Amino acid sequence: TTTDSTVLDLAVIEGDGIGHEVVPQGIRALEAALEGSGVEVRTTGYDLGAGRWHRTGETLTDEDMSALARHEAILLGAVGDPDVPSGVLERGLLLKLRFGFDHFVNLRPTRLVPGVASPLADPGEVDFLVVREGTEGPYVGNGGAMRVGTDLEVATEVSLNTAVGVERVVRYAFAQAQRRRKKLTLVHKHNVLVHAGHLWRRIVERVGAEFPEVAVDYAHVDAATIYLVTDPSRYDVIVTDNLFGDILTDLAAAIGGGIGLAASANINPTGAFPSMFEPVHGSAPDIAGKGLADPTATVLSVALLLDHLGHAEAAARVRAAVDADLAARSGLGARSTSEIGDALVSAVRSA
Amino acid sequence: TTTDSTVLDLAVIEGDGIGHEVVPQGIRALEAALEGSGVEVRTTGYDLGAGRWHRTGETLTDEDMSALARHEAILLGAVGDPDVPSGVLERGLLLKLRFGFDHFVNLRPTRLVPGVASPLADPGEVDFLVVREGTEGPYVGNGGAMRVGTDLEVATEVSLNTAVGVERVVRYAFAQAQRRRKKLTLVHKHNVLVHAGHLWRRIVERVGAEFPEVAVDYAHVDAATIYLVTDPSRYDVIVTDNLFGDILTDLAAAIGGGIGLAASANINPTGAFPSMFEPVHGSAPDIAGKGLADPTATVLSVALLLDHLGHAEAAARVRAAVDADLAARSGLGARSTSEIGDALVSAVRSA
Ligand SMILES: CC(C)[C@H](C(=O)O)[C@@H](O)C(=O)O
Ligand SMILES: CC(C)[C@H](C(=O)O)[C@@H](O)C(=O)O
Repeated sequence: TTTDSTVLDLAVIEGDGIGHEVVPQGIRALEAALEGSGVEVRTTGYDLGAGRWHRTGETLTDEDMSALARHEAILLGAVGDPDVPSGVLERGLLLKLRFGFDHFVNLRPTRLVPGVASPLADPGEVDFLVVREGTEGPYVGNGGAMRVGTDLEVATEVSLNTAVGVERVVRYAFAQAQRRRKKLTLVHKHNVLVHAGHLWRRIVERVGAEFPEVAVDYAHVDAATIYLVTDPSRYDVIVTDNLFGDILTDLAAAIGGGIGLAASANINPTGAFPSMFEPVHGSAPDIAGKGLADPTATVLSVALLLDHLGHAEAAARVRAAVDADLAARSGLGARSTSEIGDALVSAVRSA
Repeated sequence: TTTDSTVLDLAVIEGDGIGHEVVPQGIRALEAALEGSGVEVRTTGYDLGAGRWHRTGETLTDEDMSALARHEAILLGAVGDPDVPSGVLERGLLLKLRFGFDHFVNLRPTRLVPGVASPLADPGEVDFLVVREGTEGPYVGNGGAMRVGTDLEVATEVSLNTAVGVERVVRYAFAQAQRRRKKLTLVHKHNVLVHAGHLWRRIVERVGAEFPEVAVDYAHVDAATIYLVTDPSRYDVIVTDNLFGDILTDLAAAIGGGIGLAASANINPTGAFPSMFEPVHGSAPDIAGKGLADPTATVLSVALLLDHLGHAEAAARVRAAVDADLAARSGLGARSTSEIGDALVSAVRSA
């Protein structure tokens, strides 16, 4: 009712399984973080995922895409269940959103905070950001097969990489490094994937010249997995392709205390389409509907959403609330999804 | 001089850097293991690697290939130095050997033995075998680029996968699982790389029917990295493609105590060409020539060589010697490459 109140127009895809449980907690945290800011959160739910596919055979129609495109941002829980054939929702929904909305920056931070156990004996300071390319590489769906089911079957998968596609994500990664500890590591496999690898190398070198304060290094993807478990503190910003980023960020999530805490942002920095925020974990059908899911990864994804929309201070409060909650956990018994949500909401308010 | 003595005709590629230091220790261990067996080791050195390339511009000629092809097996140290452009020795030498000699099984065991520190806080029992496909996938060199160096550059990398190529390595992996703890895990990313992934899936299912005692499961490559650091004891045999195998085995090596202990075998089970045995570590130019390199990975690669040539008992003695040496290490100070070699040779003799 005040004239200066603005609206954050959010599309919400709860999806399947624990998506229905964690997303509402994320929205509560978002609202709490924006209380008193004059920004009102308006949500529109979209029925997408395994449930819809089972009922209708649809994954994501053109109408869905146009409707989603009108929002400022998208919050997604998780999609999938064991009865959907592999690839249907990945290619037909998740990747269709990422590619259709040109989410060329896939941002995945890892921060090991006090109170959280890492599988590593001596993790040291873990605080790095993986900037994963989101619209190219082996994810483009440019493969095929012939003589399927026979002894003569041949199947291909083509990784497509363009100078424009690599440069825009590399530039984004350098800008992040400039704001952080000023170190950027390219991860690829240029000794084997020489064409794509050399494209990435040359572009990192060229864009790096615009960021003279940022130290640049390189690791082959295989070696990077070693460093992630033996010396993760060496990393600040990692920039890498879509598939290597997929692999490294799951490993990173494990090191940072588990996939239950890992947030991600699928960003189109041009603003031409809404960016999308999602926890890295899946729909976890085994624990769905029981109130056992940890909403923390969703709440941390909300912090990335707040950052993206320019509410840096609100984002910082959300992260502080999560840190405080994680630090206090060892003293507490098991809590339900909504109990953790309650704790996070009041911590956001008092942060 | 006895009539029943036979010859093991071994090609030796020391390569570069620490390759020159670790390979001689591997040969000593091999000879020690075969003492009294009536098998005489005859070695022929081949000058291949960065050194040769710097002098002659050659990586691996047709003559080299024909000469190598006449041996029973190849022992390789490591190739490369920082002054060789990326890809030259990888594609022109290492991968040319693996592809030219049709090394379709790339065997990489991980065993965490007493006395060895893992970066994991609570590794549990770690004893698994990665069977990495060696002649297909994104490693085939089937990529290219156009408009190189311009803003319109496009670079591709094609993963090629055939039913024959997948089936033969999958069958090998099942046979290994049958002899071990009877569990096989396929690792791929069939929800995104649907064509290649579904080929692998179908073949694992079909070949699995011939091994009813072997339990089969599946993990996406990203999830597999999580399990490797949170619950590595779940794995017995992992079968996977060339690139995923490259990545997972470096991570596996780290978990098993480091790349300095990781052995590998590039096997052509048909015997049409010699198989090749190599430590996973590289030429380590930073420590080369100083007697600091640990020859253990080479000695363990020799155990794989002995296994491959049917000397299972000798292989077991080599592994027992390594285990004993590793178990005793914490009490010892730093030892040189040849001191570790001495210790292993006498342990092999007394095992
Ligand atoms: C579900 C799958 C398509 C997705 C990916 O591979 O990107 C997931 O693993 C992720 O990391 O977000
Ligand atoms: C050096 C390189 C070509 C090789 C590979 O990628 O296979 C290495 O990383 C390995 O794992 O043996």
